[in-house]
Amino acid sequence: MQSKTNVLTAEDMALMQREISVSEFFAKNRHLLGFDNPQKALLMAVKEACDNSLDACEEARILPELYIEIKQLGEDRFIVSVEDNGPGIVRDAIPNIFGKLLYGSKFHAMKQTRGQQGIGISSAALYGQLTTGKPIKIISKTRKDKPAHYFEIHIDTNKNRPEIIKDEVVSWKKEHGTRVEIELEGKFYRGKHSIDNYLRQTAISNPHVKITYQPPDTEELVVYKRSVQELPVEPLSIKPHPHGIELGMLISMAKNSSSGYLKRFLQTDFSRVSTKIAEEIARRANIDSKKKLSSITRDDFDALYRAINLTKIMNPATNCLSQIGEEGILKGLKAVIEADFYSAVSRSPAVYRGNPFIIEAGIAYGGKQPLEEPAELLRFANRAPLLYQQSGCAITEAVINTSWRNYNLAQPKDAMPIGPLTILVHMASIWVPFTSESKESIAHYPEIIKEVKLALQECGRKVGLHIRKKIRQADETKKRSYIERYIPQIVIGLKEILNLKEKETNKTTKNLYVILEKTRRRY
Amino acid sequence: MQSKTNVLTAEDMALMQREISVSEFFAKNRHLLGFDNPQKALLMAVKEACDNSLDACEEARILPELYIEIKQLGEDRFIVSVEDNGPGIVRDAIPNIFGKLLYGSKFHAMKQTRGQQGIGISSAALYGQLTTGKPIKIISKTRKDKPAHYFEIHIDTNKNRPEIIKDEVVSWKKEHGTRVEIELEGKFYRGKHSIDNYLRQTAISNPHVKITYQPPDTEELVVYKRSVQELPVEPLSIKPHPHGIELGMLISMAKNSSSGYLKRFLQTDFSRVSTKIAEEIARRANIDSKKKLSSITRDDFDALYRAINLTKIMNPATNCLSQIGEEGILKGLKAVIEADFYSAVSRSPAVYRGNPFIIEAGIAYGGKQPLEEPAELLRFANRAPLLYQQSGCAITEAVINTSWRNYNLAQPKDAMPIGPLTILVHMASIWVPFTSESKESIAHYPEIIKEVKLALQECGRKVGLHIRKKIRQADETKKRSYIERYIPQIVIGLKEILNLKEKETNKTTKNLYVILEKTRRRY
Repeated sequence: MQSKTNVLTAEDMALMQREISVSEFFAKNRHLLGFDNPQKALLMAVKEACDNSLDACEEARILPELYIEIKQLGEDRFIVSVEDNGPGIVRDAIPNIFGKLLYGSKFHAMKQTRGQQGIGISSAALYGQLTTGKPIKIISKTRKDKPAHYFEIHIDTNKNRPEIIKDEVVSWKKEHGTRVEIELEGKFYRGKHSIDNYLRQTAISNPHVKITYQPPDTEELVVYKRSVQELPVEPLSIKPHPHGIELGMLISMAKNSSSGYLKRFLQTDFSRVSTKIAEEIARRANIDSKKKLSSITRDDFDALYRAINLTKIMNPATNCLSQIGEEGILKGLKAVIEADFYSAVSRSPAVYRGNPFIIEAGIAYGGKQPLEEPAELLRFANRAPLLYQQSGCAITEAVINTSWRNYNLAQPKDAMPIGPLTILVHMASIWVPFTSESKESIAHYPEIIKEVKLALQECGRKVGLHIRKKIRQADETKKRSYIERYIPQIVIGLKEILNLKEKETNKTTKNLYVILEKTRRRY
Repeated sequence: MQSKTNVLTAEDMALMQREISVSEFFAKNRHLLGFDNPQKALLMAVKEACDNSLDACEEARILPELYIEIKQLGEDRFIVSVEDNGPGIVRDAIPNIFGKLLYGSKFHAMKQTRGQQGIGISSAALYGQLTTGKPIKIISKTRKDKPAHYFEIHIDTNKNRPEIIKDEVVSWKKEHGTRVEIELEGKFYRGKHSIDNYLRQTAISNPHVKITYQPPDTEELVVYKRSVQELPVEPLSIKPHPHGIELGMLISMAKNSSSGYLKRFLQTDFSRVSTKIAEEIARRANIDSKKKLSSITRDDFDALYRAINLTKIMNPATNCLSQIGEEGILKGLKAVIEADFYSAVSRSPAVYRGNPFIIEAGIAYGGKQPLEEPAELLRFANRAPLLYQQSGCAITEAVINTSWRNYNLAQPKDAMPIGPLTILVHMASIWVPFTSESKESIAHYPEIIKEVKLALQECGRKVGLHIRKKIRQADETKKRSYIERYIPQIVIGLKEILNLKEKETNKTTKNLYVILEKTRRRY
């Protein structure tokens, strides 16, 4: 017999249903946002603030200057502050940006930015609040002649909305910019997953940025100087490419469109659709190209969707992308890594699921880098370093699947190449397909892996040539020294056999050196 | 000189800020929910519907009967339908449950359920809509004497709310239950990550469930019969344990509490806090235990939080958990896997971050399982099988870190044991810490890994004894057959040496057999 305690009816269950706020959801699931443990949380807070600062500076075409400070308050308590010289934030926009999850300007724009989701900085604020109960503090100023605004903001997790604790006008020496301060539970480490390493890598991929960093455990400032004096080319927003759209998306775009009829909808709501292409699609779908959008049926959409995918359409425009460029990568690497040889490659744009992207790669070889260890891999997405989950990343897969032995480097099976080298890979895209919301690794799209491999092969060949040259030079020096050592002996032999005089002997010696010089000068 | 096109001011940027709906967010990031590719999507849709059905049946104390059907419409188009004999859903609750993300009854309950977040079934509906444009279809009936309701529901992604396409009263033969139908893009496969395997594992961990499955590629029904005739013990809701609470959570609980003053708040809003413990906490924090909650300052909360963590508090109650039980595991394994030997262990409850949990393990050894392959690992969380991301799961780590050689099994370094065995591990908890929203693997909490290892060791020892016994038996049989073969020879020798008569010879032979029997009977 079954117990009757707590047996629920459909009516009981219906009464228990309620809405869950996004903040509650992410508070309980904060590992989804990268706040798994105190060490990572500290890094994530810095990263989210820096991403926002750099995006804002670049959108306002200001050469970025960041000041990052970590203060230690107790064994596991820290204050992270990040200050920029960006355009500032308008007063009324501040509370929602920092006190509401899923709020922002980047989610709906098809544009290359570091932030994508409107969830980063508010999730750092949420983590701080959960672990210390303290609000996020913001100062922002938009113009020299305007006041600076100071806010302290809590997130009301039940409602996912900001609760303003303080809202004051303050004086601030800066002409414009924003300063964000978060108190949180954390752990400070140095090493692979450290803030130091994150900033070092940020400096490499953003040679136009000046970074000043005050760590908690020393008085000494760490400064990364600007090595490129110009802002990167500005990425533009684009419209979606027809080949990147799913059926459901197509229906929903048509529903929300103000284009009126089919042909205009295809031409104006998508990129790369000319009159001719629009008509071709309509013809293929067997729908009148002048048909009103509101009268298009579900079956029509089905046909339309198939027709779009059967029609050849020019690849998406790529002026929406902003690469670091070969020169930028070389400067970035040289500024931070001491090596003998540098190479860099910036590939032409490619497309996955209708999203254009560019892969760039760089290699720094030799110098004081360890001889017998696996190469260091630096992964970047839209110029932001990826520090965690290296093994799950498409970039890592591409590196491992490249045959580094072809380039005179040792490589154990299914592993990174061994040698004194650093490998950099950068993916720039309007939509980087991260495997998780914490933006730590890139999903395994075959198109992306292929492009990374091609970039690495191009870089690899140059490095391989350099290594081969070095090997030959070493061989050469060795051979040369052998021959030089034996020339006098040969001359003595010749002298005895041919009965040479002193003068002839000297001339022969000289000739032998000349021949050695001529035949082996090549390298 | 910098270009002036598209340079944005703080004001421009403020105008671009807007709210992002949860549906839009997950539509764009559907890999976070497990809808990465067509094969996995098909499985996820089945899994989310089954999880809901089983939870509902058990809450209503109904022995579950599931009917799952996959129909193939085109190369990559399928209809998934899942029908249960559960309590049904009240008409007015249907649209939100299926047409709104982050809506449900389980998120706020501290109770062991398969679903946790109120996001599963609506995300499957969202995926169907995105890939086919078709709405989710639901029939539900709560009682014999009530009508059945039929709904077709779209999700308005801009607003994260249901859009009702059809809402009709229909006749349905069932007394009560729910049927869900989703049309989606998918791929049907057999093998490790298949629906077949998912249902097979569900049958193992839920021996009280009857499953009937109609695959798309054959007429033949697959049936998993019920092997346990009783429902599992009913899990109860509990209040949070003080040691599982963070500072921010403590503050927010106090704010929303109706308990009035500190002592009562501690006693009534948490589990395991007696009057004595509440007073001890207050004393340690140096706060009057009668202090009004509304007058407690942030510094007080800080002190309170520290005091809670310094105070010894009884572990959380564990009647909130519902294990499969040793008998259930044995029955489940025997019903589905043919083997020579089965063992099962159900550990006592343990705690991580204030959340109680129970680990159970089972092993099926021998039979027709492959001799030279790694063991098959079946992972379960709250009775639901975990099919993906085996390598990233805490359970896998625990299996690999167990020394299987101690139990007479081969085990390569850092790998699964080799042999004819299946290993089952089940974690039951009010809150399973999944590493991602797609609920594929369990996070690496040391407490969890330790418990899994202890459970495996206990099972492993039993299997080890069985294997050793088998080895000894084999040895014994071999030795015995040797001796038996030589007894006649020995007797001939004895006969010659001692000059035995026929009768004595026979008696000696008999005696020798008796001795052999006596000395070697042990095994």
